[in-house]
This record gives sequence, C-alpha cells and structure tokens, in this order.
Amino acid sequence: MTTLGPIEEELAKARAAYRNWGRWGPDDVLGTLNHLDDAKRAHAAGLVRRGRAISLALEFNEDGPQRGFRGRINPVHYMKDTGTDAAADRQGFPHGFGGADDHVVMPLQAGTQWDGLGHIYDNKRAWNGRSCTIVNGNGDSVTGIEHMADDFVGRGVLLDVGRVVGEDGMELPDGFAITEEHLRATIEAQGPTSSVRRGDIVLIRTGQINRVRRNGGWGEYAAGAAPGMSFSTLGWLHRTEIAAAATDTWGFEVRPYEFPDPCMSPLHQIAIPNMGLPLGEMFDLEALGADCEADGVYEFLLVAAPIPVTGAVGAPVNPIAVK
Amino acid sequence: MTTLGPIEEELAKARAAYRNWGRWGPDDVLGTLNHLDDAKRAHAAGLVRRGRAISLALEFNEDGPQRGFRGRINPVHYMKDTGTDAAADRQGFPHGFGGADDHVVMPLQAGTQWDGLGHIYDNKRAWNGRSCTIVNGNGDSVTGIEHMADDFVGRGVLLDVGRVVGEDGMELPDGFAITEEHLRATIEAQGPTSSVRRGDIVLIRTGQINRVRRNGGWGEYAAGAAPGMSFSTLGWLHRTEIAAAATDTWGFEVRPYEFPDPCMSPLHQIAIPNMGLPLGEMFDLEALGADCEADGVYEFLLVAAPIPVTGAVGAPVNPIAVK
Amino acid sequence: MTTLGPIEEELAKARAAYRNWGRWGPDDVLGTLNHLDDAKRAHAAGLVRRGRAISLALEFNEDGPQRGFRGRINPVHYMKDTGTDAAADRQGFPHGFGGADDHVVMPLQAGTQWDGLGHIYDNKRAWNGRSCTIVNGNGDSVTGIEHMADDFVGRGVLLDVGRVVGEDGMELPDGFAITEEHLRATIEAQGPTSSVRRGDIVLIRTGQINRVRRNGGWGEYAAGAAPGMSFSTLGWLHRTEIAAAATDTWGFEVRPYEFPDPCMSPLHQIAIPNMGLPLGEMFDLEALGADCEADGVYEFLLVAAPIPVTGAVGAPVNPIAVK
Amino acid sequence: MTTLGPIEEELAKARAAYRNWGRWGPDDVLGTLNHLDDAKRAHAAGLVRRGRAISLALEFNEDGPQRGFRGRINPVHYMKDTGTDAAADRQGFPHGFGGADDHVVMPLQAGTQWDGLGHIYDNKRAWNGRSCTIVNGNGDSVTGIEHMADDFVGRGVLLDVGRVVGEDGMELPDGFAITEEHLRATIEAQGPTSSVRRGDIVLIRTGQINRVRRNGGWGEYAAGAAPGMSFSTLGWLHRTEIAAAATDTWGFEVRPYEFPDPCMSPLHQIAIPNMGLPLGEMFDLEALGADCEADGVYEFLLVAAPIPVTGAVGAPVNPIAVK
Repeated sequence: MTTLGPIEEELAKARAAYRNWGRWGPDDVLGTLNHLDDAKRAHAAGLVRRGRAISLALEFNEDGPQRGFRGRINPVHYMKDTGTDAAADRQGFPHGFGGADDHVVMPLQAGTQWDGLGHIYDNKRAWNGRSCTIVNGNGDSVTGIEHMADDFVGRGVLLDVGRVVGEDGMELPDGFAITEEHLRATIEAQGPTSSVRRGDIVLIRTGQINRVRRNGGWGEYAAGAAPGMSFSTLGWLHRTEIAAAATDTWGFEVRPYEFPDPCMSPLHQIAIPNMGLPLGEMFDLEALGADCEADGVYEFLLVAAPIPVTGAVGAPVNPIAVK
Repeated sequence: MTTLGPIEEELAKARAAYRNWGRWGPDDVLGTLNHLDDAKRAHAAGLVRRGRAISLALEFNEDGPQRGFRGRINPVHYMKDTGTDAAADRQGFPHGFGGADDHVVMPLQAGTQWDGLGHIYDNKRAWNGRSCTIVNGNGDSVTGIEHMADDFVGRGVLLDVGRVVGEDGMELPDGFAITEEHLRATIEAQGPTSSVRRGDIVLIRTGQINRVRRNGGWGEYAAGAAPGMSFSTLGWLHRTEIAAAATDTWGFEVRPYEFPDPCMSPLHQIAIPNMGLPLGEMFDLEALGADCEADGVYEFLLVAAPIPVTGAVGAPVNPIAVK
Repeated sequence: MTTLGPIEEELAKARAAYRNWGRWGPDDVLGTLNHLDDAKRAHAAGLVRRGRAISLALEFNEDGPQRGFRGRINPVHYMKDTGTDAAADRQGFPHGFGGADDHVVMPLQAGTQWDGLGHIYDNKRAWNGRSCTIVNGNGDSVTGIEHMADDFVGRGVLLDVGRVVGEDGMELPDGFAITEEHLRATIEAQGPTSSVRRGDIVLIRTGQINRVRRNGGWGEYAAGAAPGMSFSTLGWLHRTEIAAAATDTWGFEVRPYEFPDPCMSPLHQIAIPNMGLPLGEMFDLEALGADCEADGVYEFLLVAAPIPVTGAVGAPVNPIAVK
Repeated sequence: MTTLGPIEEELAKARAAYRNWGRWGPDDVLGTLNHLDDAKRAHAAGLVRRGRAISLALEFNEDGPQRGFRGRINPVHYMKDTGTDAAADRQGFPHGFGGADDHVVMPLQAGTQWDGLGHIYDNKRAWNGRSCTIVNGNGDSVTGIEHMADDFVGRGVLLDVGRVVGEDGMELPDGFAITEEHLRATIEAQGPTSSVRRGDIVLIRTGQINRVRRNGGWGEYAAGAAPGMSFSTLGWLHRTEIAAAATDTWGFEVRPYEFPDPCMSPLHQIAIPNMGLPLGEMFDLEALGADCEADGVYEFLLVAAPIPVTGAVGAPVNPIAVK
C-alpha cells in the first residue's frame, strides 16, 4: 500500500520526477505520443490474427453519463429534416428523392474521448512549460487536438484490473485506487501478451461500466466516486514510456482522491501538463475485456483517432481494437 | 462516353438492377458492409508495411466548407473555460490546478463523414424497403449510425483518378463525371495493388481539395460544381460488391448532375436506400494520394469508425489509413 | 366540484363547444389574440399609475427547471471570448479595446415562454383546421411565433389563486385542479380590478415557484405533479374571450391529469389547436403577486413580446407588467 | 464638421470627460439606466394614444445578417419533433394528441439586441472600474444582463436622422457619421415630441435596413461599412443623461471608423465601460419610422426587455414601442 504525503508535497515530488518539458524540443505538440513511431505501428498491425474489430466507444446520446459537472451536458441530437417530412411530402425534392440531415451539440468530452494537452494546467503552465493563456476563447492555439489526428495508432494493451483484482473477478469497487502492484499483478496474471512496452497505448479496465449497466442507469458515474488510477502510478506511467493511457471510467484517476485536502484531479495535473501524457476516458472496455479473456491475448492494434476539431482541448473518438 | 436517358427512366432501371433489399434478411442494418468480414479485416491488417498512419479527415472548424445548404453550418467550437480563466485566477481550483473544457455545435455532415443508411430515401422508402418514417425528430430508430460503430475496418483501396485521368496529372475539373472506364483506367495505371475486391472500402480521389487549397478558400466546394462519380458507375459500385465508397468531394457524385431535368443526388437515391451502400464524403485524400504515388502501393488497412451518435443519419469520422 | 367523463368523450364535447376554426377567416395566424385590439392596448396603458415595471421572467441558465422531458435541456451559455482573454492580452485589438461575446443553446420552451399555435395538434390538425404537416423540420411554415411579434401587449390581470384559495394563503399544492369556481372566488376576493374582460391576458398564480424556492431546487417542477388549470376551465377560457393566458407552472394545466386514462396535456389539445389560445408557462409571478397584494390592484399593462424566431412553435419571453 | 485627433488622444479626452465610474456607488450594475425611474416610466405610459404596438425586432433565423465576425453565426432553429412526426404516427401520444418542440443555437447578439455592460472593456477595465476578469468562461459574474431584466421600460424617442438628413429623405449612406448637429437638426425638424430628456431611451434611425431590403440581401450589413454615430456624439450621449440608445445598424457607431489608425469600436470603448451606457443594435425602425412620420409624434412608451440569460454580455430582445 502506497502512502501519500500532503498534496502540495506530492505534486512537487511528482513534478520534479516526471516532468518531460523540453524532452522533444521547445515546439513539441505531441507529448508522450513521441514514444510511438511507425515501426511500432507496423508491429502492432502484425498482432492482428482474427480480424475482429471492436469499438470501444459509448454511444453518444441524450441518455449519456453527464450530469452537469463543469457545464457538461449529454449530446443533443437534432434532426434538420426527417423521413417523416419526406413521407408528408414536405421536402420539395424531385423524382421521389427524400432525405434526413442531423446536427449535434455536445461537450467534446461528453463521451468516449481523449484529453488533449491543452486540457489541464499546473500553476498556469500547460504542456512543455507554455503559458496556459495559449488556450483562450478561440481554443488551444498551440496544442489543439488536430495535431494528434493520426498519432493514436499503435499497440494497444488491455490491463483488465477489474477481472484480475476485483473480488468478484469482474469489477473494482468505487473508490478503489489501482496501484503499481495491481498493474503488475494484472500483467502477470494475464501473461506475456500484456507486457507493457515503450510507445504502447494502455487501456485499464476497472469494470465500472459493467456495474453501471447492471444497475440500469449511470448514477454518479460522472464526477462521482469511482475506481481509478492511484496518484502513485505516475511513476509507472512515466517509467514505462507509454504513449497514452485510457480507462473505462469518467475521470481516469480514483475518486474520491487519495488526499484529505481540497483536491482536484491531481494525477491529471502531473500527467497532462508535466508529462505530456494524453488520457482517455469513458472507453467502453466490456466487449474487449470479454474477448481478451476468451482468447487469452491482451495485445492488439488500436486505432483511436479523435475527431480533429481545431483548437480542441479534448475530442470524441470511436476507438477500434483489431485483434 | 455513357449516355443516360431521362432521370425517371434511369432511376427505374437502376432500382431494378441494383436493389439489395432482403439480401441480408429483413432486419439488416448494415447494407453492403455485410460484404466485409473478419477474415478480410485480418487480411487488410496484413497489408501494413511501414506503419505509417495517415488521417483522411479535414479539420473541423468555423472555416470549413459549409455554406448553408440544407441548413448546414460549419462547426462552432465553444470554450466553457479557458487557460485565460486560469491565468486570471478565475477558476477556483486548489493546488495550482487549472483547466479548459470545450463544446461543439455541428452538423453531423459538416466535415469528413459517412452517410448512414437513414440519410436518403427513394419514394419514401429507406434501406431494405422500410418506410422512411423510421426517421423522425428523434433520429433513425432502426438504421442509426451506431449500428456501424465497428464495421468500417478493412482493406482500403485508393483510386487516384485525379492523378491518372486529370489532364495535369493531379486534378479533375469541376463537372467531370467519373465513369467505369476511368475507374478501370486508374486501376490499370496504378497496378495490381489497386484491384478492387469484394468487401473493400474504395476511396476515389478527384483532387478537388488540392484545387481548393491552391485557390485559398473553399469557394463553392459545398453544393457547387464538382468532379464526382457518374450515375453510370452504379453498376460498378454494385457489381464489385464493395463495402463502402468515399470521395474527396462534398457530395460523392458529379455536379452538376448528368440529367437536364430538375434533379437531386440521383446516385445517392440508388446507392443508399436501394443498394445499402454507405457513402463517405469530404475525405482528405491529398496526403494519402502522395504517399501511394511515392511507394506505388494503393491498398492499405483502413479504419474509418464514425462517432456513434445514436440514431444519426450521418456521422463525423477521422479515417486512418495505415500503410 | 366538476366531474369529468372519459377522456375521449370530454375531448369530443370540448371540441364541439370551443372550436374557433374559421372565426377569423381561413388565413388566420393569431387565434384569440384577435380579441385584443389597439383600443384595448391604449386602455391598458392608461392603467399605469406608479410606473413600476416588473419582469415576469425566470433567469435563463444551466440551473433551470428542465430535466429532459421531450429532450428539453436547460440553456447552455457559451462565451466566445471573455474578459480573461482581454486580461491575458489574447484578443489582438488595438488601443486598449477588449470585449466578450456569447452564444446560447436552448429549447425555445426552456424557461418563461409562450406556446405558439403550431405547438400542439388535435388528431393531426393544427390551429384553424390546418394539417399538422405545416410544421416540418424547418419549423412552422404558417403559424410561426414571428407572426405574433407585437400582439402580446394589452391589459394583464393577475388571478392570484394561490393567495386566495391556498390553505396557507400563498400556494396551491401539487395536483390541485383550479376550477371556474376557484377563478370566480379569486376575482371576487381580489375586487373589481381583477374582473376579466374580452382581450385580456390573464395570469394565474399558483405559488408553485414560491415552493420551489423555499425547497431550494426545482425538483419535479418540469413535467412532475403541479397545481394548474382544470380541463373544466376550458369553458371559462373560451367564454371570457381572453387573448391569452399564462401560469407560473411548467405546464399550465394540472398534473397529474384529471383522467384515469393514459393522457397527455388534454387542456392544451383543446386550447391551442381548437381555440387558438396561446398559453404562457413558467411566468414568475412572485414579485407581481406581492405587488398586487400590496396595492390591491390586479390589472396592469402587460408587454410580453416573444423573441420572433422564424417558424418557432414556442418562444422565450421576458414579460413586463407595468403598474 | 467635427475634427477628431489621433485615436489614443481622443480616447483619453473622452475618458476624462465622460467616465461615470462611482456615480451610482461601487456596486452599481445598471449604469445609465439609473437615469430612468418609475416616475418617468409612468409618464411614458401616459404617452400612449392609439394603442398601436410596434415590434422593433428583426426575425431571428438562418437568413439573418451575421457573416462570421467574432464567430457570430445566424440563429439555427432545430425541431425536436414536428407535425410531420405526428402525421406519420411517430409520436406515441394517446387520444389524438400531437406536438412539436424546438430549440435554437444562436449568438446572443445575432439579431436585435442590447449590449450588456460586460460586453466591452477599456484597458482591461469593465463598467465602474472593475477588472475585466469578472467575465470568464462562465459569463459575467457581476454585470450580467439579468440585472437589467425590468429596466428597459421608459420613454422612447425616435430620431429619424435618415429621413431628416438623408439626401433622399429616407436613408443615410454607408460611412455617414451622425454628429450632434445632425441630431439637433433632426429634433428640430421633428418637433417637440422628439426633445430628448434625462432617462430617455433614444432610437436613432439611419434607414440602412430599408436599403438592405431594397437590395434583397444583407450584404455587408454585419461588420461592413454603415452609417452610424460619430465618436464625437459621446458628449451628447453623456450630457443628455439618456438611459440607453439604439440604432438600426449592426454596430451603432459609424463604419469605417473616423480614425486613420487601426481601430476597433472606439465609441463603444467609451460608452459601455466608461459611461455605463447600454447600446442597442439591429433595432428594426422601419415601421416605427413610418408611423412617426405619419402622425408627427416621435415619443412613445418603449418596453425593450432583454431575455435574462444569466451572466450574458448581450441579449436578444423584442422591443415594443406603444404609441
């Protein structure tokens, strides 16, 4: 069991130990995605055996998990025209043509998404030591998600901590802090296909979504108590030189936080602006978890390309694992 | 040169020849994506050599191509909080934490996108013969894009008609109708890696985006004159049993249309509701075209998974070609 | 106590008795607003004594009453640029100029609003007997709220049923059905300034908003149980020849409905498409109620002009009572 | 003809002469609306003769004037359900009930609107000397438009400069700077009902909207050349102690600006943060202008209550003149 000191002290130690500023030059906009290169991508493609493609995205709709935290709503889907308009001869098109068209209003982090490097700041500093004022009302003028449009392609590894560590062999309880020991135990239990290497995109399954579904409603999934990564895993996230990491929870890190002090996403505060590590959230890992358990293979090609909204500090994604 | 008869006559012939209703059972929601299976996906992954990932998405922003057709606007990106808020100590977070969050309002077909099967009707019939009233103000209750969340993964083939047929070796002029002969000539010129097979996702490059960029503005790219597929290619699109097809233009088919009569997207009217063929539009094929020309290889793994907005009749996508 | 028969029977009787189709010609787009004319408006202006203007609008914000019924969200307020941007020198304007700009996304019936004549249908018929297909994906092509941009100006009368009939002299309980007897008792208790005349805009206060505020949250205000007008008041609403009517509740009529059958807004079904009576909802009548109680005068000039969104079936309004 | 010096010099002189900071106490949120009181409102109601109500709002729709300046789009109107859905029996309501519901996305300054006091800053200072950082991603935390929900009610005066000064007796040309002399000449020509007094809400008609309509399109109405108030009228706006002022143009002040230097809304920079004067824009004064010309009366009751979006720096309004 890791013992954490006071929040400011732990943040200071983590900054000193894990800060990657300047590691890839002063103009870098990719952070730890620099650990991932084409050779690794080619290797990842070679992992495909059966050709099964598994979407890791939640559906985007008005019944999603959001409950208003930071003004986040669930996606609102609008039809500009409909089949019912066509049926009522209210479209005015010739030769029997009819059509429907639709719009959406949504937070870019409403559902399955990557946090971009402009999403979080540490004492007014963004990734690579830049002033956080690079992000104004027009968005992120330097590290917008569009710069990562084709980078999230590589070897994905599933660490199904829920199955290995969960008491019921399926889920971790809310408030459960995943530590390095849990990650190592999971890798050991799952076998060599889940060894974590430089440049990997690591997916950590807690099983919380399974519980949500069993309970028939999102409940406090968004911004409530949840299993997640301990602040103490920052060393592992840094040392392994992974490219990115994602969980099946709303906020990646464990909630409530592990500090008694007033506290806000402390792991994010180190991971994103200091390490440059993109974090994925609300990845639906249920089908992938079942598939990996069935065939015993925990590595795959992962293509998780965000919608490149210019200047975005986060972006929706439909991640595809190909096994 | 293909000669087309009156629009109603051509539509009637095309319906009779290319309608796939019932081919995959009465409950089908995938259309020609049924031509693509896991074995083909595994084969496609095996095409990866260098591991280069190329995004085929346009950036999504307020300077996009939309000009109001059918009420389509360009994406509007909203910041709910910003780095400037953090810099001004106007966020109220503890221990130096700061953050930004953003939303978007956009037509689902604002940029690079797949048309879903509920997008177009033929005489009030949607895909598989269903009444078009399956699409009401709540969206498509049967064939929403969410059903295709993990299907657009397979062998991609680039047919760079712009380079092969364009007089300047790069672009087709606006109004240029691509026929079967042009497709065959392109395949022949490009060599065997561009042979088209059952289950492929075929990308047709006209080069129009190259012209847009050279001209420094979208001009009439949206809903204006454009090169594109001739109505007469419906036979080829059907006979080849491809899974899906996309172009680098706004509307897939040639504009102005090839008929003197008042006319609206006649190729769509056969392809989507009758054949069940998903059409992709506004795919940015410039980088891919250059890469394929450079290495002479026109086949690749394509992962083009749309954001699964429930009930959507179209959806944004960041398609990734891996070579 | 009114006894109501089965829903279909009551609807049939009400249609027969209160339908105003054709009363103002076949092209009418104003319904009972025709009862209000310039002479009445001049008279209403003459009621002003002290010159106190009282807004009857709720604030429009993310903490509003909506809970998702029919996809209604609370207004989302977006800043496109901010004072913090200006403070961070991130705007680029000359000579010390700075500015902020904002957008909103909201249901037109998110807060204080008028129901337009295209909002409700009775057996596929809209106001004046028109087919309900006049309202398609582009909005209401005939009776959009823009046609009423300058009509909601006249004599307002407050019937403070909450104060007169409420057991605590302030509020009616949820589920309380206001009948003609209650309206008459209120008028009698309030005195002659509350007599209701042809062309009036009648505001009925239940006091439910007072309860909401005391309880510190909207609770089930939207689409939950509420005091409101009994179906049996349709005769009074018709006979009095009032121009429009509004309440301080989410849905004007009492909820749960007064019928054991599956039921949806039966009073609306008669009032809007059959009578042509615009209904106002979520009018905040607390300050007005207190003012009227204080001076004993229940009539005033009311200017309640909706934002004229073209084709809208409802519209937000900041109603102003001038006393 | 007024001669203006260099921009910085003129701004400095205007600040020194017209700044109202502290005039109504340190907590003031109303600015010059403090000049208007209930006695004046009662007097204004007494001006009503015929009872004619005239809406001064443009319709809000996708064909509005916006062209993208500062990210402003025209309002997008969305139907969540429609009459065509009802006609197709795709709503699921009982007893013949059907309905439509709609949403809107729009800049708060998309159409007829009041600029709030948080809209503009002068060297990082907002109204009353506050730091401009009171306006962050959550909106204006101090001077949001909701504080003015019931204040814009008073004596309206139309100064129809277009008719009096326009060479054609109707319109001023684009670029025409209205000076104090023009205002005085207009008042003199119109007669005593247009004398301007403390607490008035002054409407200045240029006739530009008349030209827009004649030309059949908005053209460069938004952010293009326009007639409007000269910077030199700030003295008049201050000295008259009016409560608020509005024009029928996009931006109140003349465009191009009267300074050769790079320049952005210099009159706004003094009027809003320094004087606390709310400015109205895009008021449609065509019908009002014709009515005033016809009866020779240029004063009226004006009720111009903005939609009280919490924290808004501007807000849509349907202003009603009652004559």
